Amino acid sequence: MQVDAADRLKRCADDLAQVRADAPRVHCLTNDAAANLTANGLLALGAVPSLSDHVDEVAAFTANAGALSINLGTPDEGRLAAIDLAVKAARDSTVPWVLDPVMIERAPTRRIAARRLVEQSPDVLRLNAAEKASLFDTHDAPPFDGVLAISGAEDRLTQGDKQAVITNGHPLMARMTGAGCLLGAVTGAFLAVERDPFQAAVAASLTVAIAGEMAGEEAQGPGSFHPALLDALARIRPQDLMEKARLTCAP
Amino acid sequence: MQVDAADRLKRCADDLAQVRADAPRVHCLTNDAAANLTANGLLALGAVPSLSDHVDEVAAFTANAGALSINLGTPDEGRLAAIDLAVKAARDSTVPWVLDPVMIERAPTRRIAARRLVEQSPDVLRLNAAEKASLFDTHDAPPFDGVLAISGAEDRLTQGDKQAVITNGHPLMARMTGAGCLLGAVTGAFLAVERDPFQAAVAASLTVAIAGEMAGEEAQGPGSFHPALLDALARIRPQDLMEKARLTCAP
Amino acid sequence: MQVDAADRLKRCADDLAQVRADAPRVHCLTNDAAANLTANGLLALGAVPSLSDHVDEVAAFTANAGALSINLGTPDEGRLAAIDLAVKAARDSTVPWVLDPVMIERAPTRRIAARRLVEQSPDVLRLNAAEKASLFDTHDAPPFDGVLAISGAEDRLTQGDKQAVITNGHPLMARMTGAGCLLGAVTGAFLAVERDPFQAAVAASLTVAIAGEMAGEEAQGPGSFHPALLDALARIRPQDLMEKARLTCAP
Repeated sequence: MQVDAADRLKRCADDLAQVRADAPRVHCLTNDAAANLTANGLLALGAVPSLSDHVDEVAAFTANAGALSINLGTPDEGRLAAIDLAVKAARDSTVPWVLDPVMIERAPTRRIAARRLVEQSPDVLRLNAAEKASLFDTHDAPPFDGVLAISGAEDRLTQGDKQAVITNGHPLMARMTGAGCLLGAVTGAFLAVERDPFQAAVAASLTVAIAGEMAGEEAQGPGSFHPALLDALARIRPQDLMEKARLTCAP
Repeated sequence: MQVDAADRLKRCADDLAQVRADAPRVHCLTNDAAANLTANGLLALGAVPSLSDHVDEVAAFTANAGALSINLGTPDEGRLAAIDLAVKAARDSTVPWVLDPVMIERAPTRRIAARRLVEQSPDVLRLNAAEKASLFDTHDAPPFDGVLAISGAEDRLTQGDKQAVITNGHPLMARMTGAGCLLGAVTGAFLAVERDPFQAAVAASLTVAIAGEMAGEEAQGPGSFHPALLDALARIRPQDLMEKARLTCAP
Repeated sequence: MQVDAADRLKRCADDLAQVRADAPRVHCLTNDAAANLTANGLLALGAVPSLSDHVDEVAAFTANAGALSINLGTPDEGRLAAIDLAVKAARDSTVPWVLDPVMIERAPTRRIAARRLVEQSPDVLRLNAAEKASLFDTHDAPPFDGVLAISGAEDRLTQGDKQAVITNGHPLMARMTGAGCLLGAVTGAFLAVERDPFQAAVAASLTVAIAGEMAGEEAQGPGSFHPALLDALARIRPQDLMEKARLTCAP
């Protein structure tokens, strides 16, 4: 591991301790299937979830939150309208926010909604390779200078010339719905306590990936992995990050 | 424990047996994150959940239910309209109902909706200390003569000059989303079989708190606490209430 | 077991292997309480869930899916409109689909919606005895020549003069919300790889029933049954069907 990675890793551990100390509230506009795991994952980690998507209250819930997490998993008309209001409130109140566009390669309208939100400059954009290609490997790719956090067998995070690669994790993460959505919300919890979005995104990805490894040691399959992951998010210590991280950084 | 508490406790045990015997259906208008736990908790206990929030069918579902449970966790326009229709149907058909206003201190519009519903006289109002303060510690507190069931490290229930305090429970209850929402729905199951709302609310709170203790003995963390709580709700016997209750009553 | 049942059973085992090989995507329009279990059950089995109910994207999600699964658990206005669009897309693109009408005996409007959908000729209609009676034991029963899959203590499947009865299963299936909804979605996964809808429905019912038995051996109650069922859906092999099936067929 490079010196830079060691420094970054130490700061990840400090960030985790800070999430525990501050218990930030993350307002989440997420999808029906992931709402429960997202809320329980934040609670297990030591943060506080709120999930209203009512157009009349989403601005108030966002303006005094520590961070906003937007997930496009099951958008309906009302939720998309609520998302626009929440993003405006986050920008007006300088609340950091993370966007997780889900399966945007499957439906043109969803890709358009995602593109419009990327233009609102989320601090972190969390997606997988297919979703990234759908957004950026086109002639009309939106400009974006935030953190790009690409999840998969390994997590690759970039912002400008900064890069980090995390090879922790467990295959059962991909056999449970909402694991990516949960990572988006956990990224929100770290954004709330760490002013550098790139550092926050690395710390969040590392925490979830190592918690996934810890859960994988306990689980019998994708069903028992779910409670084991929540137990691991509650149990994971800053020291676990220091001891278990497989993190490389550049420059 | 006072004599009165012993009598009340015996009746709690009888109420639990009655829930098992009658398997009442509780119609629940709840939030996205808690819907699954609420439905599974009622099934585990031996009651029957229904969860429609369609404006065209909510009145029919409510009118022939054993009780109605309203939770304001993630209200959208449609659900708020459905809630109004459900409450009207409950009142018209004398179906008992419980209201659980969630995080009303966070958004003015939600507080207004909660206030309007309190004026419709729910049999039981289940909330935490912050939610109670937001509703009642103001110059325009709504009149309310139903049961006030305040959850926290201990549960305090009052109606007029009747009081009960329950100190059973487990800290992991607060690390799982929807535990309070589930208590609201379980209160509905007891309201369906016990005509005194105060007694029903005490029996429900005691059952969930003791099931929480039983689950806490099995769980490794907040993730494994979830299935353990459902297992405990299925396993808990009237006799467990008699043996494990920490209940004080007045007068 | 008759010879016919032995042949059918062998084909069930082959169908399960094919689901694992193809990993078909099933687009699910389901209810709030079952969304999580449905998605996780498909993932555990080796299929891929998608759950959008946005009217603007549901047709695109359906047209390129392996199958469509419609559940009427918590329909609101938007979801019913989305269901109509999804069914039209499935018919236009010859995507097989399964309909699961839930609690239609409780609300007249829901029964009407279910009746209208039955007239659109789902490949499989999955329901319990009360729901079947509400649809078909009336003077205006809709014509239907698809597969009728009736779940209960035993599963009875019929189409024309073909019949199959499965007596595998576990009582805890009925103590967990969404088990029936999950079976509907799993039926979709089998419809995607098996062109005979009757065979697909038998294979799906048998797989879920035997996974339920395997889970019941592990579980302490309805709470721990949930992760155990998902683990079993991931673990179940074609050979398990061959060894554990209690299947009778006619003619």
